[in-house]
Amino acid sequence: TSSAVAKGVSMPWKTRTSHPLDPLSATEIKVAVATVRAAGATPEERDSMRFIEVVLVEPEKHVIAMADAYFFPPFQPSLLPRVKGRPVIPSKLPPRQARLIVYSKKSNETSIWVVEFLEIHATTRGGHHRGKVISSKVIPDVQPPMDAVEYAECEAVVKDYPPFREAMKRRGIEDMDLVMVDAWCVGYHSEADAPRRRLAKPLIFCRTESDCPMENGYARPVEGIHVLVDMQNMVLIEFEDKKFVPLPPADPLRNYTPGETRGGVDRSDVKPLLIIQPEGPSFRVKGHYVEWQKWSFRIGFTPREGLVIHSVAYVDGSRGHRSVAQRLSFVEMVVPYGDPNEPHYRKNAFDAGEDGLGKNAHSLKKGCDCLGYIKYFDSHFTNFTGGVETIENCVCLHEEDHGMLWKHQDWRTGLAEVRRSRRLTVSFICTVANYEYGFYWHFYQDGKIEAEVRLTGILSVGALLPGEVRKYGTTIAPGLYAPVHQHFFVARMDMAVDCKPGEALNQVVELNIKVEEPGKDNVHNNAFYAEEKVLKSELQAMRDCSPLTARHWIVRNTRTVNRTGQLTGYKLVPGSNCLPLAGPEAKFLRRAAFLKHNLWVTPYAHNEMFPGGEFPNQNPRAGEGLGSWVKQNRSLEEADVVLWYVFGLTHIPRLEDWPVMPVEHLGFMLMPHGFFNCSPAVDVPPNTHESDIKETNGVVAKPVQNGLIAKL
Amino acid sequence: TSSAVAKGVSMPWKTRTSHPLDPLSATEIKVAVATVRAAGATPEERDSMRFIEVVLVEPEKHVIAMADAYFFPPFQPSLLPRVKGRPVIPSKLPPRQARLIVYSKKSNETSIWVVEFLEIHATTRGGHHRGKVISSKVIPDVQPPMDAVEYAECEAVVKDYPPFREAMKRRGIEDMDLVMVDAWCVGYHSEADAPRRRLAKPLIFCRTESDCPMENGYARPVEGIHVLVDMQNMVLIEFEDKKFVPLPPADPLRNYTPGETRGGVDRSDVKPLLIIQPEGPSFRVKGHYVEWQKWSFRIGFTPREGLVIHSVAYVDGSRGHRSVAQRLSFVEMVVPYGDPNEPHYRKNAFDAGEDGLGKNAHSLKKGCDCLGYIKYFDSHFTNFTGGVETIENCVCLHEEDHGMLWKHQDWRTGLAEVRRSRRLTVSFICTVANYEYGFYWHFYQDGKIEAEVRLTGILSVGALLPGEVRKYGTTIAPGLYAPVHQHFFVARMDMAVDCKPGEALNQVVELNIKVEEPGKDNVHNNAFYAEEKVLKSELQAMRDCSPLTARHWIVRNTRTVNRTGQLTGYKLVPGSNCLPLAGPEAKFLRRAAFLKHNLWVTPYAHNEMFPGGEFPNQNPRAGEGLGSWVKQNRSLEEADVVLWYVFGLTHIPRLEDWPVMPVEHLGFMLMPHGFFNCSPAVDVPPNTHESDIKETNGVVAKPVQNGLIAKL
Ligand SMILES: [Co+2]
Ligand SMILES: [Co+2]
Repeated sequence: TSSAVAKGVSMPWKTRTSHPLDPLSATEIKVAVATVRAAGATPEERDSMRFIEVVLVEPEKHVIAMADAYFFPPFQPSLLPRVKGRPVIPSKLPPRQARLIVYSKKSNETSIWVVEFLEIHATTRGGHHRGKVISSKVIPDVQPPMDAVEYAECEAVVKDYPPFREAMKRRGIEDMDLVMVDAWCVGYHSEADAPRRRLAKPLIFCRTESDCPMENGYARPVEGIHVLVDMQNMVLIEFEDKKFVPLPPADPLRNYTPGETRGGVDRSDVKPLLIIQPEGPSFRVKGHYVEWQKWSFRIGFTPREGLVIHSVAYVDGSRGHRSVAQRLSFVEMVVPYGDPNEPHYRKNAFDAGEDGLGKNAHSLKKGCDCLGYIKYFDSHFTNFTGGVETIENCVCLHEEDHGMLWKHQDWRTGLAEVRRSRRLTVSFICTVANYEYGFYWHFYQDGKIEAEVRLTGILSVGALLPGEVRKYGTTIAPGLYAPVHQHFFVARMDMAVDCKPGEALNQVVELNIKVEEPGKDNVHNNAFYAEEKVLKSELQAMRDCSPLTARHWIVRNTRTVNRTGQLTGYKLVPGSNCLPLAGPEAKFLRRAAFLKHNLWVTPYAHNEMFPGGEFPNQNPRAGEGLGSWVKQNRSLEEADVVLWYVFGLTHIPRLEDWPVMPVEHLGFMLMPHGFFNCSPAVDVPPNTHESDIKETNGVVAKPVQNGLIAKL
Repeated sequence: TSSAVAKGVSMPWKTRTSHPLDPLSATEIKVAVATVRAAGATPEERDSMRFIEVVLVEPEKHVIAMADAYFFPPFQPSLLPRVKGRPVIPSKLPPRQARLIVYSKKSNETSIWVVEFLEIHATTRGGHHRGKVISSKVIPDVQPPMDAVEYAECEAVVKDYPPFREAMKRRGIEDMDLVMVDAWCVGYHSEADAPRRRLAKPLIFCRTESDCPMENGYARPVEGIHVLVDMQNMVLIEFEDKKFVPLPPADPLRNYTPGETRGGVDRSDVKPLLIIQPEGPSFRVKGHYVEWQKWSFRIGFTPREGLVIHSVAYVDGSRGHRSVAQRLSFVEMVVPYGDPNEPHYRKNAFDAGEDGLGKNAHSLKKGCDCLGYIKYFDSHFTNFTGGVETIENCVCLHEEDHGMLWKHQDWRTGLAEVRRSRRLTVSFICTVANYEYGFYWHFYQDGKIEAEVRLTGILSVGALLPGEVRKYGTTIAPGLYAPVHQHFFVARMDMAVDCKPGEALNQVVELNIKVEEPGKDNVHNNAFYAEEKVLKSELQAMRDCSPLTARHWIVRNTRTVNRTGQLTGYKLVPGSNCLPLAGPEAKFLRRAAFLKHNLWVTPYAHNEMFPGGEFPNQNPRAGEGLGSWVKQNRSLEEADVVLWYVFGLTHIPRLEDWPVMPVEHLGFMLMPHGFFNCSPAVDVPPNTHESDIKETNGVVAKPVQNGLIAKL
């Protein structure tokens, strides 16, 4: 195929260097920003442009199919619908496009721009690129995500405000270097929060030492001061020292740096544990395309979602690359708090839509964040003023041993077959203010895909009056109080079970166990069975977990069967889960209607990406988001199915979560269910056991290449 | 302390060689069997003795305290209750005892014997031991667990039975070497199953090739033949060729051996992954005593439960060894099937009480079952006729890297602290007929203890008539049918949160989230809070999981508080769970009343070990087991608390579970909740990251000792 393409077919630079799904390069971001800025009508307008987000416009699915058929691996022409006779080989791919969210500091207007990349000097590498504005429009009544620059400016402005200094002085603090001002989005609680103003309501904290950058400043919340900041004009518009709450005493257990720097002693008996892959990893990476153990997919990254997994397929013998999903990502999360008092009732952060999971990703370090042979991917973003910033080592790809894959020992002969499980893990970690979230997609040799969130970081705490106890949380240190809260995550899964890109041949079946009636066919009363029900339309497909009926959901291809004649499918198996514990009329639920069910299903629509709408801050935008889309009640009987799985945990803080919370795990599983004809893991080869490999110790004694070793 | 003991205190051999909780040695088993056999009245009686189980009599808790205070690590005199003035140092520990379950092949009687070990030649090592019968009694109306010898004999008897051969011939099978007869316990479905006879109802399978010991014979179930075997006299007592069901065709996908031997091709791209601990493991083992990362415990093993974890404690700075639990194990499991037809309705195996999880444990292999630096423990058992058998490498102890332990990155400075999690894993794996179960206890650096079961092995399948489809299961290959079923496990946890052995100062608190009423103190309707309720007595403590209220249970010490004044505690956090799906009147539930709730709590009683009674087979024994004990409704307000956590999964077979099911994970967590004053993981030291350790590659280049390396 690739040679057919090579023969005299002209291809623009983009198709040879960037797959249509590759995230924007640093150069593309630069070009996009420059193009939009140049389109500003006046110097003043150009100056006031702030760049919230510059992101690839993902092309229509048939373009992806074309790219994967003829221009990029897996070079799979069968991905394209057949035209009579033979397939038509396209001569080129359409140009790439960027989408920009621009905030005007001057007019408080948010606009969305699309820029198309043109190509000059197609044949010379590094030939310079140009952009063309394809469209631009102002989006009324929204506030786009906040930027780190705004957070920093807001802190400075508050700390410079004389009445604030006065209030801090009343609390015994004169050194403003100790003070931390964490701007929080205001959300939407009343019309006063409406987006005609860009608002932030900071939380105040106060360190105890000015020369200790790693002191945990979140350990001293400053309560009783009401501050509201106009983030457009960067001025305080409301201020009141409402209530005097003394600062909590400095907690001797607040810090988390090593040993003496914390005021403690570290363990000395953690012996090193090394993971060595002397022959390198089992994966192959070409650009953003990854192949591993019959799996293949592409890695994407956006400022809002962070990691995106595209075009997930599994090579199944003579059936070739079989598609499982078109696009997997975490599109929103919400953390509502359970205390009705100031300032906690306002804490219901939408960390994707108000801040950006990808934008706040960490640069990861071998041996610390990741162990084994690591392949990292960098990510590029625009900063607030339009410069390009790069997070190096932002996405981590590596293999892990995962214990027993399967085993059987014959009791007659004592003969056993056992296989070890290897998994491929793709992940990133981000910080949103005090909390950390790690997002992981694990691929397994038995066809499973696991989505996992790891929660860690510092609790969001408040101060108590001396002697005060509150039922809405836990006193975790003297005077220090951590309110109860929930963490919700939304995984958006554009499924494509045995579908070519864009094919609409999936449906979702809900399965519940039914207890059989007693009677002559059930005399021992033991009988139960699985009942299947197709979720026929969007309103039927708003579903909750039900562990007692073993409820799960199978995405089935409507036309493809396995060897026993069952439709091929992948099932979504919930892990532990919950629903919002706030009252049904809670204010934040107007913006987060999508939390009301654990599962939603929609037919694919290009612009339905974010369940709380693209701009969830300061506006319930009742006409946007999952809760509104499904009111169309579109048919799902045979569709290009998108699953929205909403999962969460209720966090009742423990003393042991302080000062940094040990990781909590939460997630769910996608499992083949009648997708394969038998276990796809049956062909994993056995390991030689210990006594067989004593001779191979020599392998380890060889000099080990850099990057093959990571030390714990 | 140990020197104080050494000074002129006489100690018998047992105390210096065996801790009171150490499993019986091979010698002790030999002595116990010989002692009981010698007590038989006649040669005939002695000959007919069959030894079902020989197990240590675990001593009273004060003996354990005495041993741990003065004779064995942790050498902790504070474990003993203080006597006025100074503690009394005991001069010796009481002798060890064995408990034997003996089945008389002649009289069909089951008896329980206790043998005490006497000591001769205390001072010479290897001085010979003697036993003395302390007690013996016949237990009426029970049938003890089946033995592998009986299974083998039963198979031979059935295969020799001419009408059986005739029936097989009707099905086209004349070569009896192909035939597999798996005896199953009959359970109790009617008075015909009563224990006056020792009964088994075999399932029949038939291989296709006689010279292939690793062929998966479970792939051809033989249906329609009713066989009932008297296992005492080893004769067929019922036989009927009831219904002609043709053998299913040989499934080409039935086998699971490597590559060509299976008729397939194995993957060739799984590159080796080595786990190297160049400085050895971080644990220390002395006999059965294990210390790792502030944790300490003792390893035990019984034929019925398999692995037992005794005396779990955590070293917490100046507070020293703080006890968490006295004894942890899996005491029963049940696998009920959902098909009301023969033979499936009879399948509701009690794999601990009818067979024995420990007795059926595997001998594990480095590199295959376990990776990294492994410490194995052997286990000794009696076989049916009283000989000693040893399963080498029966329990596996090793460390695992477990990803991120905790992390926080300051958004102002970009500075991050991250720690990697290490866990200590103790486990064993067993086969019961077609299924495999791995049981794991994981200890973490943040104070968590995780209990995990891994399920794998071969589905229990039936044959279908040509064209037949059954709603009670999945057709997994042509003519082959796997009925839906559930797997339930019971973890018994004798807790001791901040208790000395035997102290009765714990209580169990149930926590549920309550949604706050709307009103003037909850104007945004966001409020919710955790409500605690002490489970005051046994009948109040029969509880089910409730994910929607975030329900969990905290075992609290009633007298010890943490730094904020909250009672210290450990909480049980459920994983995914379910309840039996059989009708409430199901026959097998009479024997398994304990499945009716996810949590039970009892005050410790020495003889309350097995939730379905000690002999659950062939008798509902309504007066025994958890369901009856709790009717006493004993107080739990301040008690020596035992938790019984019942958890399960509903298994709807997939084609992908065939021929060997990829591992499913199931479990729960014990987590400190206000037990510590802050995160116990804050003192885990950071890793040096990759660039810092390039020089240490030399470590790996050194010759690696045997046992330090295991290859994947
Ligand atoms: Co939390
Ligand atoms: Co099963």
